Amino acid sequence: MPSTRTSPSFPDAEYWDRIEKTRAAMEAAGIEVLVVSDPSNMAWLTGYDGWSFYVHQAAILGMEGEPLWWGRFMDVAGALRTVFMEEDACHGYEDGYVQNPERHPMEDLARLLDAYGHGAARIGVEMDNYYFSAKAYGTLRTFLPNATFTDATGLANWQRAIKSSQEIVYMRRAAAIVEAMHARIAEVAEPGMPKHKLVAEIYHQGISGTGGHWGDYPAIVPMAPSGLDATAPHLTWDDTPLRTGETTFFEIAGAHRRYHCPQSRTLFFGRPPQKFLDAATAVEEATVAALNKAMPGNRCEEIANAFNAALQARGFTKESRCGYSIGLSYPPDWGERTMSFRAGDRTVLQPGMAFHFMPALWLDDGGIEITEPILITDKGHERFCATPGGLLVK
Amino acid sequence: MPSTRTSPSFPDAEYWDRIEKTRAAMEAAGIEVLVVSDPSNMAWLTGYDGWSFYVHQAAILGMEGEPLWWGRFMDVAGALRTVFMEEDACHGYEDGYVQNPERHPMEDLARLLDAYGHGAARIGVEMDNYYFSAKAYGTLRTFLPNATFTDATGLANWQRAIKSSQEIVYMRRAAAIVEAMHARIAEVAEPGMPKHKLVAEIYHQGISGTGGHWGDYPAIVPMAPSGLDATAPHLTWDDTPLRTGETTFFEIAGAHRRYHCPQSRTLFFGRPPQKFLDAATAVEEATVAALNKAMPGNRCEEIANAFNAALQARGFTKESRCGYSIGLSYPPDWGERTMSFRAGDRTVLQPGMAFHFMPALWLDDGGIEITEPILITDKGHERFCATPGGLLVK
Repeated sequence: MPSTRTSPSFPDAEYWDRIEKTRAAMEAAGIEVLVVSDPSNMAWLTGYDGWSFYVHQAAILGMEGEPLWWGRFMDVAGALRTVFMEEDACHGYEDGYVQNPERHPMEDLARLLDAYGHGAARIGVEMDNYYFSAKAYGTLRTFLPNATFTDATGLANWQRAIKSSQEIVYMRRAAAIVEAMHARIAEVAEPGMPKHKLVAEIYHQGISGTGGHWGDYPAIVPMAPSGLDATAPHLTWDDTPLRTGETTFFEIAGAHRRYHCPQSRTLFFGRPPQKFLDAATAVEEATVAALNKAMPGNRCEEIANAFNAALQARGFTKESRCGYSIGLSYPPDWGERTMSFRAGDRTVLQPGMAFHFMPALWLDDGGIEITEPILITDKGHERFCATPGGLLVK
Repeated sequence: MPSTRTSPSFPDAEYWDRIEKTRAAMEAAGIEVLVVSDPSNMAWLTGYDGWSFYVHQAAILGMEGEPLWWGRFMDVAGALRTVFMEEDACHGYEDGYVQNPERHPMEDLARLLDAYGHGAARIGVEMDNYYFSAKAYGTLRTFLPNATFTDATGLANWQRAIKSSQEIVYMRRAAAIVEAMHARIAEVAEPGMPKHKLVAEIYHQGISGTGGHWGDYPAIVPMAPSGLDATAPHLTWDDTPLRTGETTFFEIAGAHRRYHCPQSRTLFFGRPPQKFLDAATAVEEATVAALNKAMPGNRCEEIANAFNAALQARGFTKESRCGYSIGLSYPPDWGERTMSFRAGDRTVLQPGMAFHFMPALWLDDGGIEITEPILITDKGHERFCATPGGLLVK
């Protein structure tokens, strides 16, 4: 029986292209069977889309034929609604394995791999993924004593680095959505407004979408800290009112069909202190210097080096990476976890790569995030968004 | 220097109570040092709250003194804004460890544990947690060759089972929020409305909160499938219009200060087919039968057995568990991952335990979810919510 997909994001041929690229990488790494636990990689290889990654599940790719989908039995129904493969490629384990310390779902996966002739194979597993726990690995090894295991963390992620034209279409829709989210903030934020009321508006705009395209959930919730809380990068929100004389940054993303376009802006009510104006100017200048390097043939670290040099010339420093690759994602991270803009990352930029250029500064009395999602093009790069730059002063 | 918390969720004494309970469980398990990777357990033991769990981090609890917070250096600032401990209990690792296949953050944690005299300790780690990867465990073992490791999955989670009075206050606020979310669905849903427009309203209500209490982000996004998509439990949404003659279920939660109250309801436009009416009646009757067993002294499996017997008497069956414990949580799961209402779970119910009673039926042509969050009281139980039962027919 064919799957009953109502709204596939890609034609089958695109999945087969992805599989071909992934198999070439598997061959180069000496891997015969790839067990993919990362929900983003599962979606990219099979089309699977559902919030079921809180239980163990995987996509399995051998060197021939369709990939397999494996997960909790109740989620087979969701697989049949979303994957490109036929029904017989989808396998469920029974509910008694769920969150039960006496039985682990990987016992079932071991049996499945053995049944498909992979009991003594060289198996690649994503050793450093959120969804492949220490216990999962231990159980798989115990129940497949004749298999050999290789760390394949990032193997599929790297194949996702260069986006297809359809993927870029979805990222442009996500970009339009995050532009609309920032426009909504500029429109409704005012001193005294409780933070959560503003976040409710951000969510409403993000999910409503724009330009006829619906909003999906971003892989990270809005981060929206004010004042001293904005000295920290990853706080969310509460009901504290927005205040005159404080910065608030909004690290948010538009999302469409699981593709992300993150962008941050920083709001200030009143007359910003000179220090924040100087910081915003320094970031703006360093961004121009950095993005002048964003072109095919250059390396990731060249962007970081140009950024850091320009920032330091203005008297500011940033210790953390200033960007990372983006695209398809699931919680808890909207980054692809491959390339970073930082010293030592010598990856060569190619057309179709997409990044969140992320020159955030967390100072001792506030934070400034003015960031740009970009696409590497044939000759250079383009910014995904036309959101106005600089501090948003109201 | 003391931490600079602006809005602590609990007095320090409550954290010390939790630590005392956890140390007793550690002692019983022969564990000298507990390394907690689960963000829910980190928050429960230290107060830490931030969306930084996409990088490696942990709370470390020895048998004496304050717990330690360990994470990415940039997140120390967020720790200082949220944890109850002093600044010298918070330790950051440098950014070059982040998502870098050549260096793993657990190398840094190994050094920290050694520096605190735990290099040869019996260390408990959460082997089957999302945030403790196979690679994290392997690295920790390599860099602490004299330590002994024990699986402590669930050890802290189990200490969270009985809620304090302040925790129950937060869950009641979350309950009021999810009631308001379901009321909003009943108010605005209509045939032809694109699904994402309705989800935008659900989010807006959930984050806006109710009764003067703000809404936090739930650990799972709204699941809102219609028609054949509702034969699957974990699909999210797109822009397909709501249609007359189809069921749509809404599995959603209110959240306040990371405490959750999930509840599901099912919507039908038009005159429901007899089969759906029969299923809803069967679920309602079986819910009454099951919840009659929800009292201190009974066991989790007694609820499941009563539910399944009553459901089968009406001609329906459910293979999966019909409930799980709830409380404080972070993505990707709002359950506590300890107790389940299913055969074989012989945990004895006690006052202060909280559950999502979850008698969902996924049929071959639609799904019905009409669920109840409950609190075990001194003499029986109470429903957290007063949301009207049965199918929502419009």
